[in-house]
Amino acid sequence: MALGGGHGLSASLQALRHMTEAITAVVTVADDGGSSGRLRQEFDILPPGDLRMALAALCEDTGWGHQWSAVLQHRFRGHGELGGHALGNLLITALWDLLPDEHVRGLDLVGRLLNTRGRVLPMSLVPLDIEAGILVPDDMGEPTEISVRGQSRVAKHPGKVVRVRLLPEAPPACPEALESIKLADVVVLGPGSWFTSVMPHLLVPDLRQALQDTPAVRVLTLNVSLTDDEASGYTVAEHVHTVVEHAPGLTFDHVIADPQVVRTRAEREALQAAVDLLGARLVVTDVGSARSPGLHDTLRLAAAYRDVLGVRTP
Amino acid sequence: MALGGGHGLSASLQALRHMTEAITAVVTVADDGGSSGRLRQEFDILPPGDLRMALAALCEDTGWGHQWSAVLQHRFRGHGELGGHALGNLLITALWDLLPDEHVRGLDLVGRLLNTRGRVLPMSLVPLDIEAGILVPDDMGEPTEISVRGQSRVAKHPGKVVRVRLLPEAPPACPEALESIKLADVVVLGPGSWFTSVMPHLLVPDLRQALQDTPAVRVLTLNVSLTDDEASGYTVAEHVHTVVEHAPGLTFDHVIADPQVVRTRAEREALQAAVDLLGARLVVTDVGSARSPGLHDTLRLAAAYRDVLGVRTP
Repeated sequence: MALGGGHGLSASLQALRHMTEAITAVVTVADDGGSSGRLRQEFDILPPGDLRMALAALCEDTGWGHQWSAVLQHRFRGHGELGGHALGNLLITALWDLLPDEHVRGLDLVGRLLNTRGRVLPMSLVPLDIEAGILVPDDMGEPTEISVRGQSRVAKHPGKVVRVRLLPEAPPACPEALESIKLADVVVLGPGSWFTSVMPHLLVPDLRQALQDTPAVRVLTLNVSLTDDEASGYTVAEHVHTVVEHAPGLTFDHVIADPQVVRTRAEREALQAAVDLLGARLVVTDVGSARSPGLHDTLRLAAAYRDVLGVRTP
Repeated sequence: MALGGGHGLSASLQALRHMTEAITAVVTVADDGGSSGRLRQEFDILPPGDLRMALAALCEDTGWGHQWSAVLQHRFRGHGELGGHALGNLLITALWDLLPDEHVRGLDLVGRLLNTRGRVLPMSLVPLDIEAGILVPDDMGEPTEISVRGQSRVAKHPGKVVRVRLLPEAPPACPEALESIKLADVVVLGPGSWFTSVMPHLLVPDLRQALQDTPAVRVLTLNVSLTDDEASGYTVAEHVHTVVEHAPGLTFDHVIADPQVVRTRAEREALQAAVDLLGARLVVTDVGSARSPGLHDTLRLAAAYRDVLGVRTP
C-alpha cells in the first residue's frame, strides 16, 4: 500500500501496480485549491481531487479502464461555472451525495467502474486544513516566521516551511485505512509535496501509530526535485529529518533517493546520517523521469521497488 | 424505437423495454432551460438532459444498472456553480469534449456504462431552438399572436401555441437516427410536451421523410393530461391535427389515448375524426398513472403497446 497525495502518490501507485494487483492507496484530504477547493466550499465535503488521481492511477489496463480513467481526469475548459472542474471530482461528489456518510463505498464504486487494481481510501473522513509556519524576510531582511493556512497557499508560498499542523488537530483516521496498514505486506510513504501531501499522514495520530505497529516492510521514497516553492531551501536530508521529528518512534526499512538530489559528497553523507536515524537502508538509484524533470519515472520507480523488496516481476 | 423528449419519452422507453431488448430512442435537442441550458451557454453543445433521461430509462435492470442510473440522474443541491446540474449531463459533456464530433460514440459509451438495452441518439447533431407563435389577449382582451423563442419559455408561456418552428429551420438529421427508423419494426411517436418534444421531430425534413418511408408499424401515443401551460386550450383531437398539418403525408397504424382525455361523446368523436385523417386505428385504453396524475403508467402503457402490436410478453 502507499500513502501520499497528488502526483507523487500517483507515480508510486503506477509503479507498484507492476508488482501486485492488491494495492491500497491512502490519500491526504487537506487540499483546498482548484476544483477540490471549489467543491469543498460549495458542499463542505472531503476534497476529491487526490482521491480521483489515485483511482485513475489504478485503473484497469484495458481500453475500458483507460477510457474511463481519461473521462475521470478530464477537466472542463474555460472560466465558466464548470471551467477547471475535473469530471471525476464531480462524480465522486455526486456519489457522496447519494451515499451520505459512506465515503469509502462511494470510492469503491468508482473503483468498480474503472476495474481498479486495489482500493483508494481517504486518510480521514473529516476535511482537513493545513497550517504552516513559513520563514520569510522581514523589513530588515531578517528571517521571520509567518503563519499560512490552506494547502494551496502553503504549497505556493515563497519561503522555507518550518512547521506544519493539521486543523482540526489530531483528526480521526479512516478505519479502513488503519486496517489496511495493519494487514499490508509493504507500506510506501512518499514521494510528493513533502509538507502538504506526505507529512499530513504522520500528523494523524492513529495513522502514525498504525505505521509504527505494522509488521509491513516500510519504504520512504524521497522526491527527485527540490525546486518547487514548498521545498525551497530544503535538502532531502532535511526532509528525512522532518519525518524523524514528526514521528519519533517510526522506523523504515528502505529509503529510496535519486542521485540528482545527492550530487555532492556532503549531501550524500548528510542524507546517510538522516537515514540512519530512521534505522533504514539508503538506496540511491535512478528513479527520475528524463522527459518530465522533477517527476518520477514510473517504470524506474517500479524497478527500484522490486529491487528493495526482492519481489519477482514477470 | 421511440421518438420524443423529456419525461414522455422516458415513459415510452420504460414501457417498450418490457417487450424488447433492442430499443432505439431518438431525442429532441432543443432544450434551453435548467442544467442543459446552462451547459449550452457555457460550451455551445447539444443539450444533454433529455438524452441522459432516455439513457437512464434504458439502464440494465440490475444493481449495477440502477446504481449508475441513479448517479446519472443525480442533481447537485443548492444554488452554487454546480447546484441544479445533473451529474449525467456533466458526464455526457465531458465525453463530447474528449470525443469531438463523435456525439453518438459518447452516448454509446454512457450506454455501455449502464449496460442499456438499446441505444440513445440525438435527432440532430446541431443544437436547435424552438420558436412558437402563442395567442395571448391584447389590451382589448382580443387574442393576438406573439412570437416566443426558446423551448423552456414556450413550454411555460401562458396562451395557446398556434405554430412552432425550429431554428435553424430544416436542420440535418442524425444519420444513425435515419438508419434506425429505416430498419425499425415499430416506431412510437409521443407522448410528451406536444410542441416542444413531439412536433420537433416532424420539423426535421429528413426525419419526417424517414418516418413516412419506413415499413415499420407506426404508433402515436397521446398525452394523458392537457393541463400544463403548453397544452392549454388544446384537446387531444387538436394535437392529432397538428401532426396532420406538420407532416401531411405521414400515416399511422395505431393511436393510443387514455379515456380521461376523451370524456364526452363529442370529444371522442372529434378524436376519432382526427385519427381517421392519419389512417390509424384509435385505441382508447387506461394508460394514465394513478399515483402521478398527468403521467403515463409505464406498465399500463407496456400492456397497451403489447396489445396493439400483437407482441407476446412473458
